[in-house]
Amino acid sequence: MINIVTLVLKCSVFSKRLCLPAVRAQLKLAYSQWGSNKPHRKIKIANPLREIIMADPKIEEILAPLRASVKSQGDLVRKLKEEKAPEIDIKKAVAELKTRKKVLEEKELSLAPAEELFDRAKMEDLIKRRFFYDQSFAIYGGITGQFDFGPMGCALKSNMIQLWRKYFILQEQMLEVDCSILTPEPVLKASGHVERFADLMTKDVKSGECFRLDHLIKAHLEKIKSEKNTKAELKSEIEDILVKLDGMNAEEMSALMKRFDMKSPISGNELTPPIEFNLMFNTQIGPSGLVKGFLRPETAQGIFVNFKRLLEFNQGRLPFAAAQIGNSFRNEISPRSGLLRVREFTMCEIEHFCDSKDHPKFESVKDTKMLFYSADSQEQGKPAEIMTIGEAVAKKIVNNETLGYFMARIHLYMLAVGIDSKKLRFRQHMGNEMAHYACDCWDAECLTSYGWVECVGCADRSAYDLTQHTKATGIRLAAEKKLPAPKQVDIVEAVPNKAAIGKEFKKDAKVINDALAALESSALEELQNKLESDGEYNLITSNGNFKLTPNLVTVRKSQKTVHVEEIIPSVIEPSFGIGRILYAILEHNFRMREGDEQRTYFSLPPTVAPMKCAVLPLSGNSEFHPFVKELSNELTSVDVSHKVDDSSGSIGRRYARTDELGVPYAITVDFDTMKEPHTVTLRERDSMRQVRLPLTDVPLVVRDLANAKISWSDVEGKYPKFEQQENVKGAA
Amino acid sequence: MINIVTLVLKCSVFSKRLCLPAVRAQLKLAYSQWGSNKPHRKIKIANPLREIIMADPKIEEILAPLRASVKSQGDLVRKLKEEKAPEIDIKKAVAELKTRKKVLEEKELSLAPAEELFDRAKMEDLIKRRFFYDQSFAIYGGITGQFDFGPMGCALKSNMIQLWRKYFILQEQMLEVDCSILTPEPVLKASGHVERFADLMTKDVKSGECFRLDHLIKAHLEKIKSEKNTKAELKSEIEDILVKLDGMNAEEMSALMKRFDMKSPISGNELTPPIEFNLMFNTQIGPSGLVKGFLRPETAQGIFVNFKRLLEFNQGRLPFAAAQIGNSFRNEISPRSGLLRVREFTMCEIEHFCDSKDHPKFESVKDTKMLFYSADSQEQGKPAEIMTIGEAVAKKIVNNETLGYFMARIHLYMLAVGIDSKKLRFRQHMGNEMAHYACDCWDAECLTSYGWVECVGCADRSAYDLTQHTKATGIRLAAEKKLPAPKQVDIVEAVPNKAAIGKEFKKDAKVINDALAALESSALEELQNKLESDGEYNLITSNGNFKLTPNLVTVRKSQKTVHVEEIIPSVIEPSFGIGRILYAILEHNFRMREGDEQRTYFSLPPTVAPMKCAVLPLSGNSEFHPFVKELSNELTSVDVSHKVDDSSGSIGRRYARTDELGVPYAITVDFDTMKEPHTVTLRERDSMRQVRLPLTDVPLVVRDLANAKISWSDVEGKYPKFEQQENVKGAA
Repeated sequence: MINIVTLVLKCSVFSKRLCLPAVRAQLKLAYSQWGSNKPHRKIKIANPLREIIMADPKIEEILAPLRASVKSQGDLVRKLKEEKAPEIDIKKAVAELKTRKKVLEEKELSLAPAEELFDRAKMEDLIKRRFFYDQSFAIYGGITGQFDFGPMGCALKSNMIQLWRKYFILQEQMLEVDCSILTPEPVLKASGHVERFADLMTKDVKSGECFRLDHLIKAHLEKIKSEKNTKAELKSEIEDILVKLDGMNAEEMSALMKRFDMKSPISGNELTPPIEFNLMFNTQIGPSGLVKGFLRPETAQGIFVNFKRLLEFNQGRLPFAAAQIGNSFRNEISPRSGLLRVREFTMCEIEHFCDSKDHPKFESVKDTKMLFYSADSQEQGKPAEIMTIGEAVAKKIVNNETLGYFMARIHLYMLAVGIDSKKLRFRQHMGNEMAHYACDCWDAECLTSYGWVECVGCADRSAYDLTQHTKATGIRLAAEKKLPAPKQVDIVEAVPNKAAIGKEFKKDAKVINDALAALESSALEELQNKLESDGEYNLITSNGNFKLTPNLVTVRKSQKTVHVEEIIPSVIEPSFGIGRILYAILEHNFRMREGDEQRTYFSLPPTVAPMKCAVLPLSGNSEFHPFVKELSNELTSVDVSHKVDDSSGSIGRRYARTDELGVPYAITVDFDTMKEPHTVTLRERDSMRQVRLPLTDVPLVVRDLANAKISWSDVEGKYPKFEQQENVKGAA
Repeated sequence: MINIVTLVLKCSVFSKRLCLPAVRAQLKLAYSQWGSNKPHRKIKIANPLREIIMADPKIEEILAPLRASVKSQGDLVRKLKEEKAPEIDIKKAVAELKTRKKVLEEKELSLAPAEELFDRAKMEDLIKRRFFYDQSFAIYGGITGQFDFGPMGCALKSNMIQLWRKYFILQEQMLEVDCSILTPEPVLKASGHVERFADLMTKDVKSGECFRLDHLIKAHLEKIKSEKNTKAELKSEIEDILVKLDGMNAEEMSALMKRFDMKSPISGNELTPPIEFNLMFNTQIGPSGLVKGFLRPETAQGIFVNFKRLLEFNQGRLPFAAAQIGNSFRNEISPRSGLLRVREFTMCEIEHFCDSKDHPKFESVKDTKMLFYSADSQEQGKPAEIMTIGEAVAKKIVNNETLGYFMARIHLYMLAVGIDSKKLRFRQHMGNEMAHYACDCWDAECLTSYGWVECVGCADRSAYDLTQHTKATGIRLAAEKKLPAPKQVDIVEAVPNKAAIGKEFKKDAKVINDALAALESSALEELQNKLESDGEYNLITSNGNFKLTPNLVTVRKSQKTVHVEEIIPSVIEPSFGIGRILYAILEHNFRMREGDEQRTYFSLPPTVAPMKCAVLPLSGNSEFHPFVKELSNELTSVDVSHKVDDSSGSIGRRYARTDELGVPYAITVDFDTMKEPHTVTLRERDSMRQVRLPLTDVPLVVRDLANAKISWSDVEGKYPKFEQQENVKGAA
């Protein structure tokens, strides 16, 4: 049963943060079609890049009218925007553009030459069986959207994070912080999460069961559409609704519920009107129950609230980047798709604070070739394009060097951890799907059997967050920059006669003085004018209005020499979802041995592989034991993680088991080992080829292989091949 | 103002887990005396070990009567226990024992020669100023008991964890897991946390302000005691109460509140009766609000609920150890003492599952010398003793090899991260302070200005947790062990006539069959007897009672050959509080330059130091720039974390700054660097001595120093000394 994956997903773990509701809903729809509880099937994964490279003229012929259709609609959208047409018209045109884009992308993927057959069920079986990860609290019935990482998943994750630290913290000299997870309400009010970080849901009025509203409507309408006696006209209308569902608000969805008389799909009971459900987990901090707190929904806010300390640590200078690795929590209404939509997850986030968007190290990455799917290409029905990041910035496809530098670094990191370069693209958010704080945003997306999955967001957040926290706390989160030359500035200020004000207004004096100090320049202008013309000024304060006369206040104009200017820095934010990347790595590296579908394994890069090698005595012969022990000690002393497998299975069966764990190398102790000089065999997982080498060499050889200091072909060049053929078939 | 730290703390983050209430209260008292909001002062830290080593006869003369007094009371307690005296008598005797022990320990510490003057305020100033860590959300007013780690604290913590991984996961080949933080209620009900993980508090009836009850009572009584006109008799009674407060329950505390007419110390309002406040943060998982969940209060339960998967991963074999690094959460009523009592914290926990308590690697650690403070010594008024772990196990001071092995490994890890061996002891829990699941428990305690602080707990949890989760889920969390020889066992089972039962009891048939299958051997015996003698048996089920006759059920006795036996493994649990260890490291490594009290620094071991070196151009001369850049690139390529400090301060001031950050080495680029062959100076933080070496050598030299592969004296032996004297005074 082969099913072609064609759906292009717009994932939303990151971008959901503060997107406009319209975008939010759109981001959700795509996911709803892929429940992890659906029967598994083999999925043909198309290779999008090959198609682009080869540009088969026949395929292009088929796609041409679809491309044209997207383009004409894209042009219309632009035109409407330029003309500042009514919002409803723009919205309709955008919805139509998306439909056409979806049709085009489905066709593209379906026509691309298939690279491989991917059997998700087989992979998931391996993941569970070897405990890479599995559902949390399974012995208690389990909780959806929560996963425990077993030894192999945990080691893989930990190696990914260690490499991330090296790529970003160490190589970019970032300031790593580790902030609290429990966050008091005011912080998340300022960031906008309390108000806007919500999904719409509906409840069964009797059982209380909850449904994500967009999921429910979609399932309901699809059912009607698939019924035999549904008229063609209604079918077509439903198709239209399904596309527009993305952008609908609570009222529109409520209207749909009424029109189609939707009930609980489980009990048939009535449903409540749409409810906004905030996705943050809430709790109380401290014993009083009065301090409301949330589990952080992202790690970023911890960095923003520490901005002043970090700036000071950096001796007041811009630019600098801070980074945080840690868990975030989102109370999803219906988690699904395994690690892709979960309730707690590990993020690695960077906030790069800068006043200029040039980047001193851009030169070092400018020749990095990447796949770009710009907003323009999406609107014009064009395919994604390969080019260097240097070209992309030069052509203004990518807004600036700093954003480009980070995109290139993300690209390089993704390849280093094992993402297939052919299944990695950078997709730009279109104008109407960008979070409202962002001026540009590119997602690193990985192609998986669930479609394109957003794994890293890279957004230009501008000064949004620092400004919000400044407003909320009154503490200026800004840097000072030395001016090239001192500057004369005009100062206008109200000078209160405090003694007289105190005498006249008593307890209101403070409020009046504060209000005067807070007057902006236009108000000061008016104050001066009114005092001169009318001899009095009506000051509005929180305690009421007060009449001020020239004996109580005057306006002073002066000049001041300033040496610095205040800057609220811009923020570029690369945000990595470790669980999603980990899942994509597993998919991209899942293999079956040729000729033996049962023998599956993970072809993980040695740098991130959970363990670097296995040590296997050929049999249970006790004479092997001291050699195994010595090897294990030596490997430990050079920090090579490894597993001794002295269980009773045949050597072939044990090779198969280490392959399943993604272990790249296996050392075998056999009867020849006991002869002097002591030698062992070293086997490489992917090629299954072996060499014979001195026992004393092997720990450092494996360490250097694991650190990517030498390659397997270096090893084959140096040591004799070991010829014993592995019996693949039936070995497992 | 010098104040001698004499209080011996019994810390409680770990042991609190499931201690008996009496012990719990006792654990809390000690802390209450050290609020972080008290005025700071210089504290004389006694050196307990020196005292022991030197055993000054004069000091011993003073201590002798106190030791005798503890011993006689210890003997009394033993006698009462042996005689199974009434619990109230034992409790009183134990309380008296503790008072005497406390007096002895205070005297011991006060007589010990002081090693140094420790200025906590100075250290805390440095910690804040250089952002090792600081209060979370300070711009929003802050939350007590929550801390953010800045770049230096975060790097220190991350290096400690990395070293922990190497010491335990890698070297012991443990199975690392990474489990969910959000935990559904049934899991924590089974573990006992829902019922018992609580502190007593009282609330201001009007304002709702909460107070930890033992803190409140203590403060109230101490105030009365300190008043001039309090009679000697009452003072002595209060002293007695203060000691016994440890072991009091809610009723006893309530009585004290009434007797002394306690009111809110802030408002003077009435207080509520004692309230049990559960220390877990609660929330709801999922949108319905019906699934109650908690933030985990320890990481251990995640391992226990995955026992079956882990056992399977280990191919069904015992022993094995699983480990987890992660955050836990406790909603303390009144957090205090900086990092020592916080609301969220990082733990590293190991659960070693075993069926035998011998340890194959014990031999490798048996000569490790450690300081033991056994329960016996505590009861007998004897000081802690230095001996090897081999001796301690041989003398049965430490219960078994596995516990001893872990204690030695903990000891070695603590020294590696920078704990002063003279301020590290292992204190055994006394019989009456042990958690009810534990058969033996030793805490690794570090001496700080807050007294002895428990940093690592090492408990023998026996089969408690696995048994609890088995009871709660019905899933047997047990291992199978091959018997040395197959064994014949007698099988007795009820054989229901299912057809007849179905016909007679209809819908109750299933319940009856299940009840029959669950009958234990004594009940089966009775079933057989009754059927024979009375011709019927009264079966009790959840659906009521049923009369069964011989045509419905018979009893079959048979023999079976079994090859395996089922074992619920014992668990040894070393549990590390990373924040507490980190704090102790900072205290143990805080230094002032001789002759300049203002110039403070952290003498952190290179392996855990936040950064390994600083690169400093001698001045702002632009010709230095390329050398600085080259050095930075080379250091990065060999994974050496470093900081370039090209700010404008004098070189002395910049050395002082890197010293403050605990950076062990500094490379300086000066005018001689520009001459060929290019050379730089390398400075060691503690000695402030410098050598001159080729620029190309320095990255690997620093890497090897940082990894402890070479020592500073090796470097001094190889390269010429650089003679320029650092001007200490006034450089900062």
